Amino acid sequence: MPHDFDAAIHLTSLGEHRFAGATHPAYANMVGPYGGVTAAVLLNAALQHAQRLGDPIALTVNFAAPLADGGFEIDARPVRTNRSTQHWMLTLSQGDAVAVTATAVFAVRRETWSAPEAAFPPGLPTAAELQRLVLKGFPAWTERYDMRFAPGEAPRLDGRGADSSLSRLWVRDEPPRPLDFASLAAVCDCFFPCIFIRRGAPTPVGTVTLTSYFHADAALLAAQGERHLLGSAQGQRFRDGYFDQSGQVWSDDGHLLASTHQMVYYRE
Amino acid sequence: MPHDFDAAIHLTSLGEHRFAGATHPAYANMVGPYGGVTAAVLLNAALQHAQRLGDPIALTVNFAAPLADGGFEIDARPVRTNRSTQHWMLTLSQGDAVAVTATAVFAVRRETWSAPEAAFPPGLPTAAELQRLVLKGFPAWTERYDMRFAPGEAPRLDGRGADSSLSRLWVRDEPPRPLDFASLAAVCDCFFPCIFIRRGAPTPVGTVTLTSYFHADAALLAAQGERHLLGSAQGQRFRDGYFDQSGQVWSDDGHLLASTHQMVYYRE
Repeated sequence: MPHDFDAAIHLTSLGEHRFAGATHPAYANMVGPYGGVTAAVLLNAALQHAQRLGDPIALTVNFAAPLADGGFEIDARPVRTNRSTQHWMLTLSQGDAVAVTATAVFAVRRETWSAPEAAFPPGLPTAAELQRLVLKGFPAWTERYDMRFAPGEAPRLDGRGADSSLSRLWVRDEPPRPLDFASLAAVCDCFFPCIFIRRGAPTPVGTVTLTSYFHADAALLAAQGERHLLGSAQGQRFRDGYFDQSGQVWSDDGHLLASTHQMVYYRE
Repeated sequence: MPHDFDAAIHLTSLGEHRFAGATHPAYANMVGPYGGVTAAVLLNAALQHAQRLGDPIALTVNFAAPLADGGFEIDARPVRTNRSTQHWMLTLSQGDAVAVTATAVFAVRRETWSAPEAAFPPGLPTAAELQRLVLKGFPAWTERYDMRFAPGEAPRLDGRGADSSLSRLWVRDEPPRPLDFASLAAVCDCFFPCIFIRRGAPTPVGTVTLTSYFHADAALLAAQGERHLLGSAQGQRFRDGYFDQSGQVWSDDGHLLASTHQMVYYRE
Protein backbone atom coordinates (compact mmCIF):
# COMPACT_ATOMS: atom_id res chain seq x y z
CA MET A 1 0.00 0.00 0.00
CA PRO A 2 1.44 3.39 -0.89
CA HIS A 3 1.40 6.09 1.77
CA ASP A 4 -1.74 8.25 1.54
CA PHE A 5 0.54 11.20 0.74
CA ASP A 6 1.94 9.42 -2.31
CA ALA A 7 -1.58 8.51 -3.38
CA ALA A 8 -2.66 12.15 -2.93
CA ILE A 9 0.15 13.54 -5.12
CA HIS A 10 0.02 10.75 -7.70
CA LEU A 11 -0.15 12.01 -11.29
CA THR A 12 -0.78 10.29 -14.60
CA SER A 13 0.82 11.75 -17.70
CA LEU A 14 -1.63 13.07 -20.29
CA GLY A 15 1.07 14.31 -22.67
CA GLU A 16 4.21 16.43 -22.62
CA HIS A 17 3.00 19.09 -20.17
CA ARG A 18 -0.34 17.68 -18.90
CA PHE A 19 -1.00 15.51 -15.89
CA ALA A 20 -4.12 14.10 -14.29
CA GLY A 21 -4.59 13.82 -10.53
CA ALA A 22 -7.38 13.64 -7.99
CA THR A 23 -8.12 14.92 -4.51
CA HIS A 24 -7.66 12.35 -1.73
CA PRO A 25 -10.05 12.09 1.23
CA ALA A 26 -7.18 11.56 3.68
CA TYR A 27 -6.03 15.14 3.02
CA ALA A 28 -9.43 16.82 2.98
CA ASN A 29 -9.67 20.27 4.57
CA MET A 30 -12.82 22.24 5.53
CA VAL A 31 -13.43 23.05 1.86
CA GLY A 32 -11.43 21.09 -0.71
CA PRO A 33 -8.01 19.59 0.02
CA TYR A 34 -5.33 20.78 2.46
CA GLY A 35 -3.35 23.54 0.71
CA GLY A 36 -0.06 21.84 1.49
CA VAL A 37 -0.97 18.74 -0.49
CA THR A 38 -2.14 20.92 -3.39
CA ALA A 39 1.25 22.67 -3.31
CA ALA A 40 2.93 19.26 -3.27
CA VAL A 41 1.00 17.85 -6.22
CA LEU A 42 1.83 20.93 -8.32
CA LEU A 43 5.51 20.62 -7.40
CA ASN A 44 5.28 16.91 -8.20
CA ALA A 45 4.23 17.70 -11.78
CA ALA A 46 7.53 19.57 -12.27
CA LEU A 47 9.49 16.94 -10.32
CA GLN A 48 8.35 14.14 -12.59
CA HIS A 49 8.33 16.15 -15.85
CA ALA A 50 10.70 14.70 -18.45
CA GLN A 51 12.41 18.08 -18.94
CA ARG A 52 13.11 18.74 -15.24
CA LEU A 53 16.47 20.27 -14.41
CA GLY A 54 17.86 20.13 -10.87
CA ASP A 55 15.93 20.46 -7.62
CA PRO A 56 13.35 22.95 -6.33
CA ILE A 57 14.63 26.29 -5.04
CA ALA A 58 11.31 28.15 -4.78
CA LEU A 59 7.60 27.46 -5.17
CA THR A 60 4.70 29.92 -5.18
CA VAL A 61 1.16 28.54 -5.16
CA ASN A 62 -1.90 30.78 -5.55
CA PHE A 63 -5.21 29.34 -4.42
CA ALA A 64 -7.60 30.95 -6.87
CA ALA A 65 -10.73 28.93 -6.10
CA PRO A 66 -11.80 26.02 -3.91
CA LEU A 67 -11.13 22.59 -5.42
CA ALA A 68 -14.07 20.25 -5.70
CA ASP A 69 -13.53 16.69 -4.54
CA GLY A 70 -12.52 14.60 -7.54
CA GLY A 71 -10.23 14.78 -10.54
CA PHE A 72 -8.12 17.69 -11.80
CA GLU A 73 -5.57 18.39 -14.50
CA ILE A 74 -2.23 20.11 -14.11
CA ASP A 75 -0.46 21.98 -16.88
CA ALA A 76 3.27 22.22 -16.04
CA ARG A 77 5.54 24.08 -18.43
CA PRO A 78 9.28 24.80 -18.16
CA VAL A 79 9.04 28.25 -19.73
CA ARG A 80 12.75 28.96 -19.48
CA THR A 81 15.63 26.53 -18.99
CA ASN A 82 19.06 28.04 -18.47
CA ARG A 83 22.39 26.35 -17.82
CA SER A 84 21.71 25.81 -14.12
CA THR A 85 18.19 27.15 -13.48
CA GLN A 86 14.73 26.34 -14.76
CA HIS A 87 11.52 28.39 -14.43
CA TRP A 88 8.08 26.77 -14.37
CA MET A 89 4.53 28.03 -14.79
CA LEU A 90 1.78 25.71 -13.64
CA THR A 91 -1.99 25.68 -13.44
CA LEU A 92 -4.39 23.23 -11.85
CA SER A 93 -7.81 23.13 -13.49
CA GLN A 94 -11.13 21.42 -13.01
CA GLY A 95 -13.20 21.46 -16.18
CA ASP A 96 -12.44 24.73 -17.92
CA ALA A 97 -11.78 26.69 -14.73
CA VAL A 98 -8.35 27.41 -13.27
CA ALA A 99 -8.42 26.68 -9.53
CA VAL A 100 -4.72 27.08 -8.68
CA THR A 101 -1.77 28.82 -10.33
CA ALA A 102 1.87 28.33 -9.46
CA THR A 103 5.42 29.19 -10.41
CA ALA A 104 8.52 27.23 -9.46
CA VAL A 105 12.25 27.72 -9.78
CA PHE A 106 14.51 24.69 -10.01
CA ALA A 107 18.30 24.79 -9.98
CA VAL A 108 21.42 22.71 -10.02
CA ARG A 109 23.35 23.85 -6.96
CA ARG A 110 27.12 24.09 -6.76
CA GLU A 111 29.14 24.13 -3.55
CA THR A 112 29.88 27.71 -2.44
CA TRP A 113 30.59 29.69 0.71
CA SER A 114 27.63 28.90 2.96
CA ALA A 115 26.44 30.07 6.36
CA PRO A 116 23.38 29.92 8.57
CA GLU A 117 21.90 33.14 9.93
CA ALA A 118 18.43 32.42 11.34
CA ALA A 119 18.78 30.58 14.64
CA PHE A 120 17.23 27.22 15.49
CA PRO A 121 14.28 27.91 17.81
CA PRO A 122 15.62 27.57 21.35
CA GLY A 123 14.26 25.86 24.41
CA LEU A 124 12.04 23.16 22.96
CA PRO A 125 12.02 19.63 24.36
CA THR A 126 12.80 16.93 21.78
CA ALA A 127 9.91 15.36 19.90
CA ALA A 128 10.43 12.11 21.85
CA GLU A 129 9.85 13.99 25.12
CA LEU A 130 6.46 15.30 23.96
CA GLN A 131 3.08 13.78 23.24
CA ARG A 132 1.25 13.97 19.96
CA LEU A 133 -1.51 16.57 19.99
CA VAL A 134 -4.84 14.80 19.71
CA LEU A 135 -7.10 16.86 17.51
CA LYS A 136 -10.84 16.33 17.56
CA GLY A 137 -13.27 18.04 15.23
CA PHE A 138 -10.56 19.16 12.86
CA PRO A 139 -10.41 18.30 9.13
CA ALA A 140 -9.00 14.96 7.98
CA TRP A 141 -5.61 16.29 6.87
CA THR A 142 -4.59 17.18 10.42
CA GLU A 143 -4.67 13.43 11.20
CA ARG A 144 -2.01 12.90 8.54
CA TYR A 145 0.55 14.78 10.65
CA ASP A 146 2.02 13.90 14.03
CA MET A 147 2.20 17.34 15.69
CA ARG A 148 3.86 17.87 19.08
CA PHE A 149 3.84 21.14 20.99
CA ALA A 150 5.90 22.14 24.01
CA PRO A 151 3.97 22.44 27.28
CA GLY A 152 1.95 25.66 27.19
CA GLU A 153 2.60 26.17 23.47
CA ALA A 154 -0.26 24.19 21.95
CA PRO A 155 -2.72 26.61 20.34
CA ARG A 156 -5.38 27.58 22.89
CA LEU A 157 -8.68 28.32 21.26
CA ASP A 158 -10.15 29.61 24.51
CA GLY A 159 -11.19 33.03 23.22
CA ARG A 160 -8.55 34.85 25.24
CA GLY A 161 -6.04 35.32 22.43
CA ALA A 162 -2.36 36.15 22.74
CA ASP A 163 -0.06 39.10 22.10
CA SER A 164 2.05 36.90 19.84
CA SER A 165 0.92 34.49 17.16
CA LEU A 166 4.21 32.58 17.32
CA SER A 167 3.60 28.86 16.90
CA ARG A 168 6.26 26.15 17.21
CA LEU A 169 5.86 22.41 16.85
CA TRP A 170 7.53 19.16 16.00
CA VAL A 171 5.82 17.63 12.98
CA ARG A 172 6.15 14.61 10.71
CA ASP A 173 3.95 12.69 8.31
CA GLU A 174 1.61 10.19 9.97
CA PRO A 175 2.32 7.36 9.39
CA PRO A 176 6.02 8.21 9.04
CA ARG A 177 7.34 8.70 5.51
CA PRO A 178 10.90 9.64 4.37
CA LEU A 179 11.14 13.37 3.72
CA ASP A 180 11.40 14.53 0.11
CA PHE A 181 10.77 17.81 -1.72
CA ALA A 182 7.06 17.11 -2.17
CA SER A 183 6.44 16.37 1.50
CA LEU A 184 8.60 19.33 2.55
CA ALA A 185 6.48 21.57 0.29
CA ALA A 186 3.37 20.18 1.97
CA VAL A 187 4.58 20.58 5.55
CA CYS A 188 5.31 24.27 4.85
CA ASP A 189 1.53 24.79 5.10
CA CYS A 190 0.97 22.77 8.30
CA PHE A 191 0.96 25.65 10.76
CA PHE A 192 -2.14 26.74 12.63
CA PRO A 193 -3.34 29.95 11.01
CA CYS A 194 -1.63 32.63 13.08
CA ILE A 195 -4.92 34.48 13.46
CA PHE A 196 -6.37 31.54 15.43
CA ILE A 197 -3.55 31.88 17.96
CA ARG A 198 -3.61 35.65 18.06
CA ARG A 199 -7.36 35.83 18.63
CA GLY A 200 -7.69 32.58 20.57
CA ALA A 201 -10.47 31.38 18.31
CA PRO A 202 -10.94 29.82 14.91
CA THR A 203 -12.24 32.21 12.29
CA PRO A 204 -12.99 31.55 8.62
CA VAL A 205 -9.66 31.69 6.75
CA GLY A 206 -8.16 30.62 3.46
CA THR A 207 -4.59 30.87 2.21
CA VAL A 208 -4.58 32.89 -1.02
CA THR A 209 -0.89 32.54 -1.83
CA LEU A 210 1.97 30.45 -0.41
CA THR A 211 5.66 30.86 -1.22
CA SER A 212 8.30 28.41 0.01
CA TYR A 213 12.06 28.56 -0.42
CA PHE A 214 14.01 25.31 -0.24
CA HIS A 215 17.43 25.44 1.38
CA ALA A 216 17.90 21.67 1.49
CA ASP A 217 19.23 19.43 -1.23
CA ALA A 218 18.14 15.82 -1.71
CA ALA A 219 20.99 14.52 0.48
CA LEU A 220 19.92 16.67 3.42
CA LEU A 221 16.31 15.52 3.02
CA ALA A 222 17.43 11.88 2.87
CA ALA A 223 19.48 12.37 6.04
CA GLN A 224 16.37 13.64 7.84
CA GLY A 225 14.39 10.57 6.84
CA GLU A 226 11.21 10.01 8.85
CA ARG A 227 12.15 11.94 11.98
CA HIS A 228 10.19 14.93 13.25
CA LEU A 229 10.84 18.36 11.76
CA LEU A 230 10.72 21.54 13.84
CA GLY A 231 8.34 24.14 12.49
CA SER A 232 7.96 27.75 13.58
CA ALA A 233 5.59 30.40 12.24
CA GLN A 234 4.41 33.91 13.14
CA GLY A 235 2.11 36.53 11.70
CA GLN A 236 3.27 40.06 10.86
CA ARG A 237 0.20 42.14 10.09
CA PHE A 238 -3.55 41.49 10.20
CA ARG A 239 -5.48 44.09 8.22
CA ASP A 240 -8.91 44.33 6.61
CA GLY A 241 -9.34 40.72 5.59
CA TYR A 242 -5.74 39.62 4.96
CA PHE A 243 -2.76 38.70 7.11
CA ASP A 244 0.69 37.33 6.32
CA GLN A 245 2.62 34.72 8.23
CA SER A 246 6.21 33.55 7.82
CA GLY A 247 7.57 30.20 8.91
CA GLN A 248 10.63 28.02 9.02
CA VAL A 249 11.03 24.25 8.77
CA TRP A 250 14.13 22.82 10.47
CA SER A 251 15.74 19.40 10.52
CA ASP A 252 16.00 17.92 14.01
CA ASP A 253 19.76 18.50 13.93
CA GLY A 254 19.47 22.22 13.25
CA HIS A 255 19.48 22.75 9.48
CA LEU A 256 16.99 25.23 8.03
CA LEU A 257 15.37 23.13 5.31
CA ALA A 258 12.76 25.62 4.11
CA SER A 259 11.46 29.10 4.78
CA THR A 260 7.83 29.74 3.93
CA HIS A 261 5.48 32.71 3.67
CA GLN A 262 1.81 33.09 3.00
CA MET A 263 -0.94 35.66 2.69
CA VAL A 264 -4.21 34.50 4.20
CA TYR A 265 -7.76 35.74 3.75
CA TYR A 266 -9.95 36.00 6.84
CA ARG A 267 -13.56 37.00 6.95
CA GLU A 268 -14.28 38.96 10.07
CA MET B 1 8.22 65.80 -17.76
CA PRO B 2 7.05 62.54 -16.15
CA HIS B 3 9.12 61.05 -13.34
CA ASP B 4 11.67 58.56 -14.64
CA PHE B 5 9.83 55.88 -12.66
CA ASP B 6 6.61 56.56 -14.56
CA ALA B 7 8.52 56.49 -17.83
CA ALA B 8 10.14 53.19 -16.81
CA ILE B 9 6.81 51.48 -16.04
CA HIS B 10 4.91 53.04 -18.95
CA LEU B 11 2.97 50.52 -21.03
CA THR B 12 1.17 50.77 -24.34
CA SER B 13 -1.79 48.49 -24.94
CA LEU B 14 -1.34 45.95 -27.73
CA GLY B 15 -4.73 44.30 -27.22
CA GLU B 16 -6.81 42.81 -24.44
CA HIS B 17 -3.98 41.12 -22.50
CA ARG B 18 -0.84 42.42 -24.25
CA PHE B 19 1.25 45.46 -23.40
CA ALA B 20 4.47 46.93 -24.79
CA GLY B 21 7.12 48.53 -22.61
CA ALA B 22 10.83 49.26 -22.67
CA THR B 23 13.75 49.28 -20.26
CA HIS B 24 14.76 52.75 -19.04
CA PRO B 25 18.42 53.77 -18.60
CA ALA B 26 17.66 55.59 -15.32
CA TYR B 27 16.85 52.20 -13.71
CA ALA B 28 19.70 50.19 -15.23
CA ASN B 29 21.35 47.59 -13.00
CA MET B 30 24.64 45.71 -13.55
CA VAL B 31 22.94 43.51 -16.15
CA GLY B 32 19.53 44.62 -17.41
CA PRO B 33 17.14 46.74 -15.33
CA TYR B 34 16.76 46.93 -11.55
CA GLY B 35 14.53 44.03 -10.47
CA GLY B 36 12.24 46.34 -8.53
CA VAL B 37 11.29 48.30 -11.61
CA THR B 38 10.67 45.05 -13.50
CA ALA B 39 8.36 43.94 -10.68
CA ALA B 40 6.62 47.31 -10.88
CA VAL B 41 6.06 47.23 -14.65
CA LEU B 42 4.54 43.74 -14.40
CA LEU B 43 2.25 44.88 -11.60
CA ASN B 44 1.41 47.94 -13.69
CA ALA B 45 0.09 45.72 -16.51
CA ALA B 46 -2.48 44.29 -14.09
CA LEU B 47 -3.15 47.70 -12.51
CA GLN B 48 -4.09 49.26 -15.84
CA HIS B 49 -5.81 46.19 -17.33
CA ALA B 50 -9.45 46.87 -18.18
CA GLN B 51 -10.63 43.83 -16.18
CA ARG B 52 -8.76 44.70 -12.98
CA LEU B 53 -10.61 44.08 -9.72
CA GLY B 54 -9.48 45.75 -6.49
CA ASP B 55 -5.94 46.39 -5.34
CA PRO B 56 -2.80 44.24 -5.12
CA ILE B 57 -2.52 41.85 -2.19
CA ALA B 58 0.45 39.77 -3.36
CA LEU B 59 2.96 39.75 -6.20
CA THR B 60 5.53 37.09 -7.08
CA VAL B 61 8.07 37.86 -9.80
CA ASN B 62 10.50 35.25 -11.13
CA PHE B 63 13.56 36.53 -12.95
CA ALA B 64 14.11 33.79 -15.52
CA ALA B 65 16.72 35.50 -17.69
CA PRO B 66 18.48 38.84 -17.97
CA LEU B 67 16.56 41.51 -19.88
CA ALA B 68 18.34 43.13 -22.79
CA ASP B 69 18.13 46.92 -23.00
CA GLY B 70 15.19 47.83 -25.19
CA GLY B 71 11.60 46.85 -25.76
CA PHE B 72 9.59 44.02 -24.22
CA GLU B 73 6.04 42.70 -24.23
CA ILE B 74 3.95 41.75 -21.22
CA ASP B 75 1.12 39.23 -21.32
CA ALA B 76 -1.19 39.85 -18.32
CA ARG B 77 -4.18 37.56 -17.86
CA PRO B 78 -6.76 37.52 -15.07
CA VAL B 79 -7.09 33.74 -15.01
CA ARG B 80 -9.69 33.71 -12.24
CA THR B 81 -11.93 36.50 -11.04
CA ASN B 82 -14.06 35.80 -7.96
CA ARG B 83 -16.44 38.05 -6.09
CA SER B 84 -13.70 39.85 -4.16
CA THR B 85 -10.39 38.37 -5.43
CA GLN B 86 -8.65 38.15 -8.77
CA HIS B 87 -5.68 35.96 -9.76
CA TRP B 88 -3.23 36.97 -12.47
CA MET B 89 -0.58 35.17 -14.50
CA LEU B 90 1.93 37.36 -16.29
CA THR B 91 4.96 36.93 -18.51
CA LEU B 92 7.45 39.45 -19.84
CA SER B 93 9.05 38.44 -23.13
CA GLN B 94 11.67 39.73 -25.50
CA GLY B 95 11.30 38.23 -28.96
CA ASP B 96 10.09 34.66 -28.45
CA ALA B 97 11.83 34.16 -25.12
CA VAL B 98 10.20 34.54 -21.71
CA ALA B 99 12.48 36.60 -19.47
CA VAL B 100 10.21 37.07 -16.42
CA THR B 101 7.16 35.26 -15.07
CA ALA B 102 4.84 36.54 -12.38
CA THR B 103 1.64 35.90 -10.51
CA ALA B 104 -0.43 38.46 -8.66
CA VAL B 105 -3.43 38.42 -6.37
CA PHE B 106 -5.75 41.42 -6.26
CA ALA B 107 -8.63 41.87 -3.85
CA VAL B 108 -11.35 44.19 -2.71
CA ARG B 109 -10.76 44.58 1.02
CA ARG B 110 -13.51 44.96 3.59
CA GLU B 111 -13.06 46.40 7.06
CA THR B 112 -12.44 43.66 9.65
CA TRP B 113 -10.76 43.11 12.98
CA SER B 114 -7.19 44.28 12.39
CA ALA B 115 -3.99 44.32 14.43
CA PRO B 116 -0.28 44.85 13.97
CA GLU B 117 2.16 42.21 15.20
CA ALA B 118 5.60 42.92 13.73
CA ALA B 119 7.14 45.90 15.51
CA PHE B 120 8.40 49.09 13.88
CA PRO B 121 12.22 48.91 13.89
CA PRO B 122 13.35 50.75 17.02
CA GLY B 123 16.06 53.29 17.63
CA LEU B 124 16.49 54.90 14.23
CA PRO B 125 16.89 58.65 13.84
CA THR B 126 14.32 60.27 11.55
CA ALA B 127 15.14 60.60 7.87
CA ALA B 128 15.51 64.36 8.31
CA GLU B 129 18.25 63.79 10.90
CA LEU B 130 20.32 61.69 8.50
CA GLN B 131 22.26 62.33 5.31
CA ARG B 132 21.64 60.67 2.00
CA LEU B 133 24.14 57.91 1.29
CA VAL B 134 26.29 58.96 -1.66
CA LEU B 135 26.93 55.93 -3.80
CA LYS B 136 29.80 55.91 -6.26
CA GLY B 137 30.45 53.15 -8.75
CA PHE B 138 27.03 51.58 -8.28
CA PRO B 139 24.48 51.01 -11.07
CA ALA B 140 22.21 53.83 -12.24
CA TRP B 141 19.09 52.67 -10.39
CA THR B 142 20.66 53.35 -6.97
CA GLU B 143 20.68 57.05 -7.90
CA ARG B 144 16.89 56.89 -8.26
CA TYR B 145 16.49 56.34 -4.51
CA ASP B 146 17.34 58.61 -1.61
CA MET B 147 18.72 56.11 0.93
CA ARG B 148 19.62 57.14 4.48
CA PHE B 149 21.28 54.85 7.01
CA ALA B 150 21.73 55.36 10.73
CA PRO B 151 25.29 56.05 11.89
CA GLY B 152 27.24 52.79 11.79
CA GLU B 153 24.49 51.01 9.83
CA ALA B 154 25.47 51.84 6.26
CA PRO B 155 26.69 48.68 4.54
CA ARG B 156 30.46 48.40 5.01
CA LEU B 157 32.09 46.64 2.12
CA ASP B 158 35.43 46.48 3.94
CA GLY B 159 35.91 42.72 3.67
CA ARG B 160 35.36 42.16 7.39
CA GLY B 161 31.76 41.05 7.18
CA ALA B 162 29.24 40.90 10.00
CA ASP B 163 27.48 38.29 12.10
CA SER B 164 24.13 39.74 11.05
CA SER B 165 23.01 40.77 7.59
CA LEU B 166 20.31 43.05 9.03
CA SER B 167 19.99 46.21 6.96
CA ARG B 168 17.77 49.21 7.81
CA LEU B 169 17.34 52.42 5.91
CA TRP B 170 15.07 55.32 5.15
CA VAL B 171 14.29 55.34 1.44
CA ARG B 172 12.19 57.29 -1.05
CA ASP B 173 12.12 57.85 -4.79
CA GLU B 174 14.61 60.43 -6.06
CA PRO B 175 13.32 62.90 -7.07
CA PRO B 176 10.37 62.51 -4.67
CA ARG B 177 7.21 60.90 -6.08
CA PRO B 178 3.91 60.13 -4.30
CA LEU B 179 3.83 56.50 -3.20
CA ASP B 180 1.55 54.10 -5.07
CA PHE B 181 1.34 50.33 -5.49
CA ALA B 182 3.82 50.28 -8.38
CA SER B 183 6.48 52.26 -6.52
CA LEU B 184 5.87 50.23 -3.34
CA ALA B 185 6.42 47.04 -5.37
CA ALA B 186 9.66 48.52 -6.68
CA VAL B 187 11.02 49.66 -3.32
CA CYS B 188 10.54 46.13 -1.96
CA ASP B 189 13.66 45.21 -3.95
CA CYS B 190 15.81 48.18 -2.86
CA PHE B 191 17.76 46.47 -0.09
CA PHE B 192 21.46 45.76 -0.35
CA PRO B 193 21.82 42.03 -0.99
CA CYS B 194 22.17 40.59 2.50
CA ILE B 195 25.19 38.58 1.41
CA PHE B 196 27.12 41.82 0.75
CA ILE B 197 26.58 42.85 4.37
CA ARG B 198 27.20 39.43 5.83
CA ARG B 199 30.47 38.95 3.95
CA GLY B 200 31.49 42.61 3.87
CA ALA B 201 32.06 42.48 0.13
CA PRO B 202 30.06 42.56 -3.07
CA THR B 203 29.78 39.20 -4.79
CA PRO B 204 27.98 38.33 -8.04
CA VAL B 205 24.27 37.96 -7.19
CA GLY B 206 20.91 37.91 -8.91
CA THR B 207 17.41 37.70 -7.46
CA VAL B 208 15.69 34.65 -8.90
CA THR B 209 12.29 35.17 -7.27
CA LEU B 210 10.69 38.01 -5.32
CA THR B 211 7.39 37.85 -3.41
CA SER B 212 5.80 40.93 -1.85
CA TYR B 213 2.64 41.16 0.24
CA PHE B 214 0.80 44.47 0.37
CA HIS B 215 -0.79 45.44 3.66
CA ALA B 216 -1.63 48.99 2.60
CA ASP B 217 -4.64 50.20 0.73
CA ALA B 218 -4.62 53.18 -1.64
CA ALA B 219 -5.61 55.60 1.14
CA LEU B 220 -2.64 54.57 3.30
CA LEU B 221 -0.28 54.98 0.34
CA ALA B 222 -1.74 58.41 -0.43
CA ALA B 223 -1.27 59.44 3.21
CA GLN B 224 2.41 58.52 3.00
CA GLY B 225 2.90 60.68 -0.08
CA GLU B 226 6.51 61.51 -0.92
CA ARG B 227 7.99 61.05 2.55
CA HIS B 228 10.73 58.51 3.33
CA LEU B 229 9.77 54.89 4.01
CA LEU B 230 11.58 52.77 6.54
CA GLY B 231 12.94 49.53 5.12
CA SER B 232 14.42 46.60 6.99
CA ALA B 233 15.78 43.32 5.58
CA GLN B 234 17.72 40.30 6.81
CA GLY B 235 18.97 37.02 5.35
CA GLN B 236 18.04 33.65 6.84
CA ARG B 237 20.22 31.01 5.18
CA PHE B 238 23.07 31.12 2.68
CA ARG B 239 23.70 27.75 1.10
CA ASP B 240 25.37 26.45 -2.06
CA GLY B 241 24.57 29.31 -4.39
CA TYR B 242 21.24 30.56 -2.99
CA PHE B 243 20.16 32.64 -0.01
CA ASP B 244 16.83 34.06 1.09
CA GLN B 245 16.16 37.45 2.62
CA SER B 246 12.98 38.87 4.13
CA GLY B 247 12.16 42.53 4.46
CA GLN B 248 9.56 45.00 5.63
CA VAL B 249 8.57 48.42 4.28
CA TRP B 250 7.04 50.79 6.84
CA SER B 251 5.38 54.17 6.59
CA ASP B 252 7.14 56.86 8.59
CA ASP B 253 4.27 56.84 11.08
CA GLY B 254 4.58 53.14 11.84
CA HIS B 255 2.29 51.23 9.47
CA LEU B 256 3.65 48.07 7.87
CA LEU B 257 2.93 48.74 4.20
CA ALA B 258 4.52 45.64 2.68
CA SER B 259 6.43 42.53 3.64
CA THR B 260 8.77 41.11 1.04
CA HIS B 261 10.83 37.98 0.52
CA GLN B 262 13.30 36.86 -2.09
CA MET B 263 15.60 34.01 -3.05
CA VAL B 264 18.87 35.19 -4.48
CA TYR B 265 21.51 33.38 -6.54
CA TYR B 266 25.15 33.99 -5.68
CA ARG B 267 28.13 32.61 -7.49
CA GLU B 268 30.92 31.90 -5.05
